[in-house]
Amino acid sequence: MGPDRMGAFSDGVIAILITIMVLELKIPRDTDLRALVPVAPVLLTYALSFIYLGIYWNNHHHLLLATHRVSGGILWANLHLLFWLSLIPFTTAWMGENRFASVPTAAYGVVLLMAAVAWWILQQRIIVTQGKASILRRAIGHDWKGNVSPLMYLLAIVLAADARWVSLGLYALVALLWLIPDRRIERALVSRHGKD
Amino acid sequence: MGPDRMGAFSDGVIAILITIMVLELKIPRDTDLRALVPVAPVLLTYALSFIYLGIYWNNHHHLLLATHRVSGGILWANLHLLFWLSLIPFTTAWMGENRFASVPTAAYGVVLLMAAVAWWILQQRIIVTQGKASILRRAIGHDWKGNVSPLMYLLAIVLAADARWVSLGLYALVALLWLIPDRRIERALVSRHGKD
Amino acid sequence: MGPDRMGAFSDGVIAILITIMVLELKIPRDTDLRALVPVAPVLLTYALSFIYLGIYWNNHHHLLLATHRVSGGILWANLHLLFWLSLIPFTTAWMGENRFASVPTAAYGVVLLMAAVAWWILQQRIIVTQGKASILRRAIGHDWKGNVSPLMYLLAIVLAADARWVSLGLYALVALLWLIPDRRIERALVSRHGKD
Amino acid sequence: MGPDRMGAFSDGVIAILITIMVLELKIPRDTDLRALVPVAPVLLTYALSFIYLGIYWNNHHHLLLATHRVSGGILWANLHLLFWLSLIPFTTAWMGENRFASVPTAAYGVVLLMAAVAWWILQQRIIVTQGKASILRRAIGHDWKGNVSPLMYLLAIVLAADARWVSLGLYALVALLWLIPDRRIERALVSRHGKD
Repeated sequence: MGPDRMGAFSDGVIAILITIMVLELKIPRDTDLRALVPVAPVLLTYALSFIYLGIYWNNHHHLLLATHRVSGGILWANLHLLFWLSLIPFTTAWMGENRFASVPTAAYGVVLLMAAVAWWILQQRIIVTQGKASILRRAIGHDWKGNVSPLMYLLAIVLAADARWVSLGLYALVALLWLIPDRRIERALVSRHGKD
Repeated sequence: MGPDRMGAFSDGVIAILITIMVLELKIPRDTDLRALVPVAPVLLTYALSFIYLGIYWNNHHHLLLATHRVSGGILWANLHLLFWLSLIPFTTAWMGENRFASVPTAAYGVVLLMAAVAWWILQQRIIVTQGKASILRRAIGHDWKGNVSPLMYLLAIVLAADARWVSLGLYALVALLWLIPDRRIERALVSRHGKD
Repeated sequence: MGPDRMGAFSDGVIAILITIMVLELKIPRDTDLRALVPVAPVLLTYALSFIYLGIYWNNHHHLLLATHRVSGGILWANLHLLFWLSLIPFTTAWMGENRFASVPTAAYGVVLLMAAVAWWILQQRIIVTQGKASILRRAIGHDWKGNVSPLMYLLAIVLAADARWVSLGLYALVALLWLIPDRRIERALVSRHGKD
Repeated sequence: MGPDRMGAFSDGVIAILITIMVLELKIPRDTDLRALVPVAPVLLTYALSFIYLGIYWNNHHHLLLATHRVSGGILWANLHLLFWLSLIPFTTAWMGENRFASVPTAAYGVVLLMAAVAWWILQQRIIVTQGKASILRRAIGHDWKGNVSPLMYLLAIVLAADARWVSLGLYALVALLWLIPDRRIERALVSRHGKD
């Protein structure tokens, strides 16, 4: 199996996830501006999760560009990633509807952390399949973003009990770090084509 | 990255948005014809938003026909557009369920305005990437529809407080303006092919 | 624009419609077998609507096989069809949750009737675009199914007030008529290829 | 009609099913860790159903690889399979929200059993269309997994009344059996290519 169908399926799932989050936005009963006050934190969390899913969609695409063969293991590593991503709408709504209370804020981080772990497993699986000459391994190099993000999630989870605003700041910071698209893989692909 | 995958993802998100709006239609408990009376304004708003999303889908397709290379900036400009479009089901339900009350009617316009701004940013990003010989720039020419629409949204937002029926009329009018598909890009593409 | 992207978008919308209907199935609170009694009519209606959307998906595919060029008019005729199809989950839930009460049963027929009318408009639009040598026109020939279905919907709507079980029987009968895939278009395509 | 469009439609429906299940996860009102206790069984069931739908997606892909022509009968056998899969979110939520009560646990198995039957019908339909030299028939060979699974579902349904934990164990066991991707079809395809 080539990576096309796995990519299309993942795209479908991420497109649905990024969209159905809006169904968790409860329609206010009142019609004055104040009715939007309880919606505001949900909307902000929605925007943050929208960016996170956008980042995963973008990076997933780059990851598959460096993948030529899909094994059963890669397939399930990918479904494992989609599983954690699919819980984002749940933690988004729980955190947003409770004005960033400590436990939901930590839970938001736990799901992000697990998604990061699932991402790392998927990457490793692909590298192992490609063997020593793995394009992906070269592309990633010193994956400082990939290494720093889980640590920041961990910190945010721990801090959620006493300083949840710091946790939120950390979630926003990691999103910002990743907003810059991952050019390493593109560069490795280009340099390989240059050698051909 | 070519524009195909960005197009497919956007198509997916718009298809989901245009469809899940129907989940906001509350099933009436009663079973006489009067039970449909409170549903009627929601249904009308749904039809209007359906047309708006249809227009965006159609124009988005034409926009990508004139786009050959997708940069990171274009990708995020596109996700930014999808974000505002994704809020349409929310404002649609809020406005429809409250019989076009002033604040929800204004909010409906704000989301349309932000989507129009996001569309403009996306267009500019693509033109900048294409450089001086941009097909898209030539295709758009004097983009009177693109210039007039935001002004009409603004007017509708301001008027929502005192004359919300005028606001609704303006929303319907802008939709009508755009219902005619954008032949400018098609023409520019055709004329370019004619020169080859 | 070719019919591919319109087909993909329509497929997406129909796939979503056929799936989200299940979200209208209310999870019973009780856990004995009797808890399924109120779910039964909703489930039956769901199965009927599932078949109807399956038929539309199938016929839509055959229709596009006979379409080579998509005009703006065809595009909007297609969106018009999708609009009426998108109301099927609404009438399905209203009818199912009220044990086939008269007005919801009639409303179910009205949406089916409007979808049939939208289908006819779409077909005509495509035939007009293709001109005199229209493959589609030849394929359809004496479209007895297409002519009989709206009449049966109409009859079912009228009878819903006094004999709603007859109405339901008529809906099931029309579905049965269409379950047999439309081989006319396939045959016309094959015979044309045979001539080449 | 080739199997591509049927595959794309099925992929779409399965992607939606695997994702919308998360909408059935009710957002807890409280914000302490105990608020997650009633969510835990729903989450576990969700994970199990996620794996089942992942297995069906994976096997469906392999099935279509061995299918070259799609008849009307195959199309409806496929829609029949999708119908039963579409009921998985319903039984998942019913079982999960009621802490694995007997009747919902049996209902979960009934839907899995019906999906397995629908899968078997689809497989037979494809084999019949392919005639004596069917690649699929050779690929399946002694389909012990396909034969054992329905029996285990049946056993789980019967045991749900008195030993629902055994039923759950059986559901998990069947999922584990299938987690290993079906290499038989791949092998048959490869061996056929080897002969060419």
